[in-house]
Amino acid sequence: MTDNSPRTVRDLGEFALIERMNAGRSYGPGVLVGPGDDAAVIAAPAGRYVVSTDMLVQDRHFRLDWSRPEHIGAKAIAQNAADVVAMGAAPSAFVVSLGCPADTAVDFVDGLVDGMWAEADRAGAAIAGGDVVHSPQVVISVTAFGDPREHSVLRSGASPGDVVAVAGRLGWSAAGLAVFTTGANRDAFPEVVAAHRVPQPDYAAVLELPATAAVTAMTDISDGLLADLGHIAESSTVRIDVDAAAVADPALRPVAEALGAEALSWILTGGEDHAFAATFRAGTPLPAGWRRVGRVCSGSGVTVDGASWAGAPGWESFVDG
Amino acid sequence: MTDNSPRTVRDLGEFALIERMNAGRSYGPGVLVGPGDDAAVIAAPAGRYVVSTDMLVQDRHFRLDWSRPEHIGAKAIAQNAADVVAMGAAPSAFVVSLGCPADTAVDFVDGLVDGMWAEADRAGAAIAGGDVVHSPQVVISVTAFGDPREHSVLRSGASPGDVVAVAGRLGWSAAGLAVFTTGANRDAFPEVVAAHRVPQPDYAAVLELPATAAVTAMTDISDGLLADLGHIAESSTVRIDVDAAAVADPALRPVAEALGAEALSWILTGGEDHAFAATFRAGTPLPAGWRRVGRVCSGSGVTVDGASWAGAPGWESFVDG
Repeated sequence: MTDNSPRTVRDLGEFALIERMNAGRSYGPGVLVGPGDDAAVIAAPAGRYVVSTDMLVQDRHFRLDWSRPEHIGAKAIAQNAADVVAMGAAPSAFVVSLGCPADTAVDFVDGLVDGMWAEADRAGAAIAGGDVVHSPQVVISVTAFGDPREHSVLRSGASPGDVVAVAGRLGWSAAGLAVFTTGANRDAFPEVVAAHRVPQPDYAAVLELPATAAVTAMTDISDGLLADLGHIAESSTVRIDVDAAAVADPALRPVAEALGAEALSWILTGGEDHAFAATFRAGTPLPAGWRRVGRVCSGSGVTVDGASWAGAPGWESFVDG
Repeated sequence: MTDNSPRTVRDLGEFALIERMNAGRSYGPGVLVGPGDDAAVIAAPAGRYVVSTDMLVQDRHFRLDWSRPEHIGAKAIAQNAADVVAMGAAPSAFVVSLGCPADTAVDFVDGLVDGMWAEADRAGAAIAGGDVVHSPQVVISVTAFGDPREHSVLRSGASPGDVVAVAGRLGWSAAGLAVFTTGANRDAFPEVVAAHRVPQPDYAAVLELPATAAVTAMTDISDGLLADLGHIAESSTVRIDVDAAAVADPALRPVAEALGAEALSWILTGGEDHAFAATFRAGTPLPAGWRRVGRVCSGSGVTVDGASWAGAPGWESFVDG
């Protein structure tokens, strides 16, 4: 059987590849000029827009033998969308730069782009443009845009007495990573493996917050609960105390037991689940999707049941691990 | 003499590095929320904004032995700013992601960031945020934003009879690249070597176009004059004929003679100078900074003095070269 279809991006060429990446996509009313010119034009009905950008590098942020291209694409979009949503903004568009070797299979790029669009859809926005370049390994850079509410929700508004709450899972991605790195049977723990491959930020928990919700500060958890609450504590000049019993997750217990690991450590320091953490003014009811995990006190830093946490608080880019 | 100052990004750590990159910078009124939260917030007074993104990879788009870090940073910003300006928009902000090895010298990052800010200043905008990650070689991804005029200048508006004009140098970067690749004496040709290291787009030639200038289509020249005019020809369904005598540049002649090369080939197919090419309605005077290089005809494709150009029209990402 003969197959003359192009198999690698070198066979296809840059311009045909870009055309293929954009074929059949629809951009929605927020993308005023889409791919095909020097730049895209995006609507900003509020007269301002929220921007976040993240780079993902092969073997550092994903592995081609652990994840399908659809997973990698979805993860790249999700982690950027989560940053925009954590500002209290609704995702409006994404732009994506892709670096890859010339012998990358076109099928790989197809899967990657499909995964990106699937997650962009879930976040309610389109991919408005990008760039493809030649690089020794796969590198993905995503910039996400959002339409802000009247007031952006910063990290700096927490006050002593506020309730700390979380929307979304904690420690699942770290548990999945542990399954991969220890060589444990992936099929035995499909939920955490899936959570590591593709985070599923609960965008709706933030975007559907009622106007009456007294949110004082918010962030997404990308470096680990303690590290990211640390950013709120520092920006707001407060201490945050986490309630270990409140963050415990029975679903992680069998994984931790099988791996001889500590589920609490995954929960407190594992990044990449892209749950949202926020502080709410005391005495206001927590909105749907949110659960209480601690409280804001005077002081500085983050504590767990009143004491310092002994381990590293979370991810750091230039440390091996 | 003992020096305990951190020398590599691993020594310094991610968060201290980001703090150092942002120290002492001022952001201007268009950056409503700058670095330090989940996302930046940028003003869009027109109710919409222009976006362009490009990735630069070490040894593909720049070489550490050919360019100083200041050059690389300036080039990364310039090529993105040029795309925004080519839409007829004034640069308003940039975000930057940087991937680099853990043993990258902090001095290198300092130089890179200084070069970025210098060119961002020249383009009239600030760097509002970004990301730093660990990667096997230096990768820079820039996203540039701009405030559009009333109407964006697309590639699709050229009509037969229009005059084709250029603002900025053509072929200088390609001549500089030829000096590097042939091992010629760099000191003998400092202008083209400098042009290869850092393009100097003539932003003002576009941003100060009088309201009466009858521009029908515009692009920046990043892939080569023929390739980029080809994008206008295709989008506008016209043919563009380039006048070889009009694009000739006596300054390139001594370089071409010394290298046994063809200056016209650099001029027609060399990318990276980020000159601007535009079409103007016939009979309107060319504004300051612009020179006539050809005309728009009916038909398709790009010709030189009425004939097809025999060589490749310009840069293609997945072809070695």
